[in-house]
Amino acid sequence: MSILCVGSVALDSVETPFGKAERVLGGSAVYFSAAATVFSPVQVVGVVGDDYPLDDLDFLVERGADLSGIVRAEGESFFWAGRYHYDLNTRDTIETRLGVFADFEPKIPEAFRDARVVFLGNIDPALQHDVLDQVTSPDLVACDTMNYWIEGRRDSLIELLERVDILMVNDEEVRQLADEANLLRAARWVQDRGPEIVIVKKGEHGAILFADGWLFYVPGYPLEEVFDPTGAGDSFAGGFMGHLARADPRDPADVRRAMVYGSAMGSYACERFGVERLKELVAADVHDRVEDFRRITAFETRVPAPVTGR
Amino acid sequence: MSILCVGSVALDSVETPFGKAERVLGGSAVYFSAAATVFSPVQVVGVVGDDYPLDDLDFLVERGADLSGIVRAEGESFFWAGRYHYDLNTRDTIETRLGVFADFEPKIPEAFRDARVVFLGNIDPALQHDVLDQVTSPDLVACDTMNYWIEGRRDSLIELLERVDILMVNDEEVRQLADEANLLRAARWVQDRGPEIVIVKKGEHGAILFADGWLFYVPGYPLEEVFDPTGAGDSFAGGFMGHLARADPRDPADVRRAMVYGSAMGSYACERFGVERLKELVAADVHDRVEDFRRITAFETRVPAPVTGR
Repeated sequence: MSILCVGSVALDSVETPFGKAERVLGGSAVYFSAAATVFSPVQVVGVVGDDYPLDDLDFLVERGADLSGIVRAEGESFFWAGRYHYDLNTRDTIETRLGVFADFEPKIPEAFRDARVVFLGNIDPALQHDVLDQVTSPDLVACDTMNYWIEGRRDSLIELLERVDILMVNDEEVRQLADEANLLRAARWVQDRGPEIVIVKKGEHGAILFADGWLFYVPGYPLEEVFDPTGAGDSFAGGFMGHLARADPRDPADVRRAMVYGSAMGSYACERFGVERLKELVAADVHDRVEDFRRITAFETRVPAPVTGR
Repeated sequence: MSILCVGSVALDSVETPFGKAERVLGGSAVYFSAAATVFSPVQVVGVVGDDYPLDDLDFLVERGADLSGIVRAEGESFFWAGRYHYDLNTRDTIETRLGVFADFEPKIPEAFRDARVVFLGNIDPALQHDVLDQVTSPDLVACDTMNYWIEGRRDSLIELLERVDILMVNDEEVRQLADEANLLRAARWVQDRGPEIVIVKKGEHGAILFADGWLFYVPGYPLEEVFDPTGAGDSFAGGFMGHLARADPRDPADVRRAMVYGSAMGSYACERFGVERLKELVAADVHDRVEDFRRITAFETRVPAPVTGR
């Protein structure tokens, strides 16, 4: 099933201890789609400026993305520049220029309005409301947000939660949103306001999914080289939703697997600059990594007989 | 099989957002033993001052601990006072008084010298060497340390690694020891110097075990109330070693299970002040929590058939 994805389509300049990449493909909708299209088609809605190399998104089209919802506007594309530190867990934003993204008003093309699965990337909650107003009958709505909106658009965001099935945020964000340090209680606070599922992303520490009466934990994949962590969270979301859109979102077994597909995608995203690694991925690569996750986390609970005579 | 444990036997005053506990049982050897004795007998070597309420350790004896290696010396017992912040991930040390622990010279009683399983709690690496010099033929030596020794006793510690099978440290410590931000490479650096297994404890984020060609990840147990995190790392070590001592330390399946028993014990330790929760634990409680861990982490890798017509 196709996923409607609304988010940023950007250019990123990234510096890490391993090197530098200038004005490469970035933005939540791009990372999400690069990951999700390995498994499910995606319909993308966004805005770019007249400087955007749209041809560079052809790999998404080849994998089943419909980019007809990306509008080209006059002006500069959303640009972000950042620098990662030695341990790659912290980064400095050097520059953010919103460009045409500042006036983004998502218009959902007629052909996308019957979308059953929707991913609302991290944009103003008012725009996320607008998107849902234009979609006729979504079955499954997932949503990302960030501290900026939690602080500045709190009421709109909390209203939005009523319309959302899955909230995906990081640990700092969920704590801030619920004003509660304990993750279990913070997740329950969110669940009380609408979303049946809350996914808390913790970067290299993995992710936890809180559902109705059960939870699931997937670790971060231990990588020898974390080359560029940019977009790992959106790639996680893409892997999660891409897997779920072709499975049964109401079946806990499928939801659990989707978490592992998400973490696999998030780890692949870190292996090269920008979307370079995601671009060349095929489903078999992801299945291999999912199998690795099983090897890393599986154990038997049988209690062994005591070993004697040693 | 009995475990020889050498470490601190202390009194702790702890303040958390939930309350205050004054001069309660603490120290690495106490937490380790309180956890390990749920599964295996422990022989404890340590020192206390004339102010120590040794009777309060009777619960350990009842569970199979041999405390005849705890020496009472003239002076004050090791005392630590700390305060945890709102999120319980950071703490301030208010006071540390080493007391009789400053002159601790572990003397292994004759009856303990044939120990096959040894846990070296976090003490001066020179003393950890001394302990191993007194033990005749250990099969399995596990060791903890801390930043203080990594900085101040580096050479002695690195020499010690040749004599150690399992190093258990936290993520910050292994990075500092190996001077390497990447955990995989930091663990390999340690493995190249002796220990076949490196366990990296990450607090609420769980723990990773690096072995020869494989690794295993166990999450932190999601607790609704983290009451007092003091001693969680030593309780983890106790659960891990207590399980392994009655199983086969060379069998990866047993080692994996031991990680889960460790994490279960670490989580129980946080539920009450000091060793209060560990004191009342029976094996069935721990098995229950291990089963919870299975529910939280298990997934099937079967790829579902695409769902159509939705």
